[in-house]
Amino acid sequence: MKNKLQEYLYQHIPLSKALGIRIECATSEKIILWAPFANNINHKKTVFGGSLHAVATLACWSLLYVALKEVSDGHYQIVITKSDVAYHLPVDDDFRVEVQRPEASKWQRFLQVLKAKGKARLELSASIVHKDHPAVTYQASFAALS
Amino acid sequence: MKNKLQEYLYQHIPLSKALGIRIECATSEKIILWAPFANNINHKKTVFGGSLHAVATLACWSLLYVALKEVSDGHYQIVITKSDVAYHLPVDDDFRVEVQRPEASKWQRFLQVLKAKGKARLELSASIVHKDHPAVTYQASFAALS
Repeated sequence: MKNKLQEYLYQHIPLSKALGIRIECATSEKIILWAPFANNINHKKTVFGGSLHAVATLACWSLLYVALKEVSDGHYQIVITKSDVAYHLPVDDDFRVEVQRPEASKWQRFLQVLKAKGKARLELSASIVHKDHPAVTYQASFAALS
Repeated sequence: MKNKLQEYLYQHIPLSKALGIRIECATSEKIILWAPFANNINHKKTVFGGSLHAVATLACWSLLYVALKEVSDGHYQIVITKSDVAYHLPVDDDFRVEVQRPEASKWQRFLQVLKAKGKARLELSASIVHKDHPAVTYQASFAALS
């Protein structure tokens, strides 16, 4: 799944290639994306805030893509509707974004609404840990549509 | 200022080049950045949400950079601390982000605190209008530090 997902992102979202992402983990329960410092550096020699947000968005989108493929033929559209990011600490190295699928009850409710109405929303949280401290917290709302 | 700013961004924030931004307006009161569809397309043939956020972040940062240069020797650091984005409509073409300096009273208060304490925060709002409708609203908090 890792290689297929990376190929899909590189092919369909060219910015993912410019960000330099690599997929370290891609299951229906967890996505970890890695990105290199060099591609994402800014004038202060830290990672550009837009890059941190963009990689987190790709991680969350990927989780929904992989998890929905497992329970369907993959025909759902996945759309971001809003995102909130808090930048707690600067990141000055390669970085990883991790996102986990929400707890079972929330996930099952999302799937039920999606099957019944052909549309459902899900909130996802991603985090970037840098030198053992939470550097960035990212929350976003995604809609899936049949 | 337009050409200098674009050169600065391309040199120091390589992702700005990958995003393909062009600076259409750069004054201490307004920034307009343009970005091409091709660089920022996604799997649905609309603009990737991470690109919309990243260009808005560059626009707001640029406004503070230009406006602070006008009242100082440009030694302030400008750091994003949080951002909230609402994606109202998909964008399926080249796009522009516009950000204006806040009203005079808010701007003057920001400068006073910055001079007195060497640190101040400012909220900025950017918008992306597509086919005469607001497609994306972006709000972010920036800190300036001496």
